[in-house]
Amino acid sequence: MIIKGRLWVETDQGKVLGPGRIELLERINECGSLRQAALQMEMSYKKAWDLISDMNAQFTQPLVNSSRGGKNGGTAVVTAKGLEVIRQYRELQDHFQNFLKEVPVKFQL
Amino acid sequence: MIIKGRLWVETDQGKVLGPGRIELLERINECGSLRQAALQMEMSYKKAWDLISDMNAQFTQPLVNSSRGGKNGGTAVVTAKGLEVIRQYRELQDHFQNFLKEVPVKFQL
Repeated sequence: MIIKGRLWVETDQGKVLGPGRIELLERINECGSLRQAALQMEMSYKKAWDLISDMNAQFTQPLVNSSRGGKNGGTAVVTAKGLEVIRQYRELQDHFQNFLKEVPVKFQL
Repeated sequence: MIIKGRLWVETDQGKVLGPGRIELLERINECGSLRQAALQMEMSYKKAWDLISDMNAQFTQPLVNSSRGGKNGGTAVVTAKGLEVIRQYRELQDHFQNFLKEVPVKFQL
């Protein structure tokens, strides 16, 4: 029997960060392309674009700068603020994994 | 900006406890009826029945004893094991709320 969980971050405007959004940022950072990142996650380009737009609108600085078009379908760059958010979310996940390991509640089947 | 989360408990057979299942147990415990508890949660009777069956099958002792039929549509009683599970899940939630309050990661918009 294992305790699992998920965390997300909300503002008054709704969800702003969660596991899917962070994975999208990480993949954009690795491959430099919103389209490729969306493909890797089996997510539509529109969905990925909407998630990034939403995050960029909710933070005071954009997390991703992207340009559309061109031979390779545009590029996307995770900004310094975006990298900071990824790092902080990973740190949060580390704390959460420790919590799940150490929480003194044991269910018996 | 607020960090939120949800926890659930899994076995090799899949999910066994989560917020919805615990709420169902709590409502059955309050009203003594699976049908009433399902109604209160806007859940179909079949769905509620399936969730309880699944929990009863996964634990070594049933969490709910129920009888079908009769004038009032049968009764359902949360067992001592069921009450223990509810109590443990609440304890887990208390630890989790403390974790969320105290985790030293602050996102800035």
